[in-house]
Amino acid sequence: MVTTVTVDEWTHPVHEAVEGPEPVKRIGIAGLGLIGGSLARRLAATSCEVLAWNHRPEPYDEARRYGIRCMGTLQDLAAAQPDILALCTPLAVMPQVLSDLAPVINPERTTLTDVGSVKGLVRDQVKAAGLNHCYVGAHPMAGNELSGWKAADPHLFNDALWAVTFDDDTDYHRVIRVAGMVTRLCMNRLIVIDDETHDRAAAQISHLPHAVATELANMLIDNPDRNIAMALAAGSWRDMTRVALTDPLRTEAMIQENAANVEALLRKMAEGLTTLADELHGADQHDIDAFFARADPFRSYRARRLQAIEDRKTETVFGSLAVDANHWRESLLQSAQRGEHIIRFTNPHRAITEQVTAL
Amino acid sequence: MVTTVTVDEWTHPVHEAVEGPEPVKRIGIAGLGLIGGSLARRLAATSCEVLAWNHRPEPYDEARRYGIRCMGTLQDLAAAQPDILALCTPLAVMPQVLSDLAPVINPERTTLTDVGSVKGLVRDQVKAAGLNHCYVGAHPMAGNELSGWKAADPHLFNDALWAVTFDDDTDYHRVIRVAGMVTRLCMNRLIVIDDETHDRAAAQISHLPHAVATELANMLIDNPDRNIAMALAAGSWRDMTRVALTDPLRTEAMIQENAANVEALLRKMAEGLTTLADELHGADQHDIDAFFARADPFRSYRARRLQAIEDRKTETVFGSLAVDANHWRESLLQSAQRGEHIIRFTNPHRAITEQVTAL
Repeated sequence: MVTTVTVDEWTHPVHEAVEGPEPVKRIGIAGLGLIGGSLARRLAATSCEVLAWNHRPEPYDEARRYGIRCMGTLQDLAAAQPDILALCTPLAVMPQVLSDLAPVINPERTTLTDVGSVKGLVRDQVKAAGLNHCYVGAHPMAGNELSGWKAADPHLFNDALWAVTFDDDTDYHRVIRVAGMVTRLCMNRLIVIDDETHDRAAAQISHLPHAVATELANMLIDNPDRNIAMALAAGSWRDMTRVALTDPLRTEAMIQENAANVEALLRKMAEGLTTLADELHGADQHDIDAFFARADPFRSYRARRLQAIEDRKTETVFGSLAVDANHWRESLLQSAQRGEHIIRFTNPHRAITEQVTAL
Repeated sequence: MVTTVTVDEWTHPVHEAVEGPEPVKRIGIAGLGLIGGSLARRLAATSCEVLAWNHRPEPYDEARRYGIRCMGTLQDLAAAQPDILALCTPLAVMPQVLSDLAPVINPERTTLTDVGSVKGLVRDQVKAAGLNHCYVGAHPMAGNELSGWKAADPHLFNDALWAVTFDDDTDYHRVIRVAGMVTRLCMNRLIVIDDETHDRAAAQISHLPHAVATELANMLIDNPDRNIAMALAAGSWRDMTRVALTDPLRTEAMIQENAANVEALLRKMAEGLTTLADELHGADQHDIDAFFARADPFRSYRARRLQAIEDRKTETVFGSLAVDANHWRESLLQSAQRGEHIIRFTNPHRAITEQVTAL
């Protein structure tokens, strides 16, 4: 169901390029917490009409002053038939929210999305509610240590990258629609990947590090000489345990929501650490050298990025990505694997990408 | 061989209290790199005479301008019979330096010490050179990412804590002498512990974290979706891999110098991560809850320290530590285990301590 838009993508200026067959005019936000509130405020500053519902009406007076139309119930929000309905509610209440929505949402008019930090679990919940055909997953890389409407700030989304996710049943037309919200309204970038790739990557760069930091702190607690260790501690210890200091219940929930991927990486890491222990035990100089050299490409990648900032040069290379309508999943996933970020779909067959330093 | 000094420690002001029977008048520094150069410059600003030798004479012109007496050879430095001779040379050349020193040092006059970040290995090298009877280990918690005389800065030692280390053969008289250099000349604090306790603690808070950060970076390199992972990466990944970006050869050397302790902790950590993987696999909620709650004392310890800084209050409690001459090792080690830092020995039987928030 790919609709071709007959604009010449290179003769029209980028900001006028059309994304998807029907421009996004009305967006519904369920949940006015840190992320939902920030998103609603950012969208309310655009030409788009923003409708919102929150489980408690406390934010409504202030939200209305920002031009957000506040709805009495979640059902009212769905009944208003927004082009996109973004669920920004906590993952724990998602099954209830989805089952409340299922009877009232008009999937012909409304594309359902969310902002959750895991995608496989949400996909399962969406499927259980029978709403997968109108759903596209989304995860904006935005946030801080705060929570709630009071902390909401449209600038939280400045320079944010979104992961927009699909499965085998996803309607490409709806991906383009969500992409339009991300790039044209939020002025953000995105990558388009499958749920499982998203969740494996999130486990690698966030959930595993959180578990590892927690284990380092646990080991300190088990150490009878912990005050001596603390007396000797410097920057490496501080940095490696910082995330263990954040709310452990939040960390625990995050890790359990992505349990299978975190489990696999914990076992892989345990194996890697045991191998190093064996090599140290055997004084296997060649293997020890290899262990410490293996991440050199990561070191030079980071050095190149740092240098570009210090030189006040951007290494950004813009590209034009052809998206094969029959193989859009592969085209978009491979683009993300190359380190490209999409800054605009000029039509469903073509995206403008930005290539930052790749690893 | 403990000498009692007949001063009333509480009627004499702290800055006049005597430490050890013979005040330190002349200190020799071997090696004018980052640490040796900074130490020499800090000591040269006191009443103490500072002699130095470096394997290359490049720093000498500048060092002389700071009042440092520069010696032609290491043997000349030893022949000048300093009260304390501090080896600030790289660990790799330590065996050579020690064997050059052995025939010329006067152990009746000179106490040998060092500034190395591992103590067991240096102890073994000192023993091999037959110099253990006049040696006291030392490790100042000072440093940065730079190296060499050009980076030397006396302020590097501001607020530094030193670990001063002993073994079964250490002469307590010499511990007091080194402590005098640390507290009265460098204006620093110290803890006094055995080599093995030092090295286990250093493995816990520095060497293990470095190995873990390196393994996290290695796992990224092995990941075919590493550019997607990098697109999703935020603060936790940045902090957890920062030390993997530092010179991997330096990290490798540091870990190999403390190999047995690092090996033991790597195995313990691998076990901890595997246990968590098993608990996630089995969805053992009670055990998973316990994993994330275990470091709560560390979290509240850090919160108390942070609060004290934010309130501009110090939680410091000063104490008077009685040191039993026959059990000085136990007295001083237990003091360090309680989280006390020694700010001054008023005599060999009594130290003034500072208790920061303990864990």
